[in-house]
Amino acid sequence: MFDQMRRKDRAISLEEIKEILFCGEYGILSTMGEDGWPYGVPVNFAYDGENVYFHSTCAMSHRNANIAYLSRVCFTVVGDTQLLPEKFSTKYESAMVFGEAAVVEDFAEKKAILEMLVEKYAPDFCESGAAYIVKACGQTEIYKITPEKITGKARRK
Amino acid sequence: MFDQMRRKDRAISLEEIKEILFCGEYGILSTMGEDGWPYGVPVNFAYDGENVYFHSTCAMSHRNANIAYLSRVCFTVVGDTQLLPEKFSTKYESAMVFGEAAVVEDFAEKKAILEMLVEKYAPDFCESGAAYIVKACGQTEIYKITPEKITGKARRK
Repeated sequence: MFDQMRRKDRAISLEEIKEILFCGEYGILSTMGEDGWPYGVPVNFAYDGENVYFHSTCAMSHRNANIAYLSRVCFTVVGDTQLLPEKFSTKYESAMVFGEAAVVEDFAEKKAILEMLVEKYAPDFCESGAAYIVKACGQTEIYKITPEKITGKARRK
Repeated sequence: MFDQMRRKDRAISLEEIKEILFCGEYGILSTMGEDGWPYGVPVNFAYDGENVYFHSTCAMSHRNANIAYLSRVCFTVVGDTQLLPEKFSTKYESAMVFGEAAVVEDFAEKKAILEMLVEKYAPDFCESGAAYIVKACGQTEIYKITPEKITGKARRK
């Protein structure tokens, strides 16, 4: 189903890929629209070593409509980058997760994922975070991307 | 064809969008594959105030195959971001270009685009850049994305 990576020397280990996914501040969610256009939107996310999670405060967003049309998505996280002007190139590291995106319906799972998101993005606001989670649990949709394939590549020198 | 932006208060002006496109170090190119999977890959690029350009040193890459399958692409550039933990949110600014991607065949145009890329990424290496361009002109494919729609959004406080 998926092409093999062309430059084997740029491939990185699963541990390195996971590190990028754990540390990334945001990722780009690439989806396909019923209108015939791809759509790449930056989203905050959490990663638990297995799946990718993100939340959505509006059921009517374009990305949600796209996922309803085609649940297959690509989630791309870029780690550190540094220009190498003398080589006309760039140091970079990036990870890609290909998987099916689905709404998390189970309340307990949803709450656990919101806690993960608060812990990642607002670790110093646990108390107000708890109140936020209670409120958000009713108003927020949580999506889970279950990976079918994970790849990563880097140029480090 | 395209949805209207949901949060009007997050929309930014065309000048602000252009600034993000001029300054962005890389963008994510979202394409659709014949295999039924979206694909979002980071690429270096240049923007001349009208079109987006990027180069490819391998005609066999997955992104090139995807563009050959469906030339409609989405190109996403994220500008400055800053976590707002106390608001469980993030300051950000981003631009999206939706357009048709096509290989630039004209030699003079191709050379001018390579010069633009060298000027952006290696402004202090003009001399070796000129040699690089001569070499690259034969080996490199240049893609142009002609925008059909450009959008941008930001949260700044």
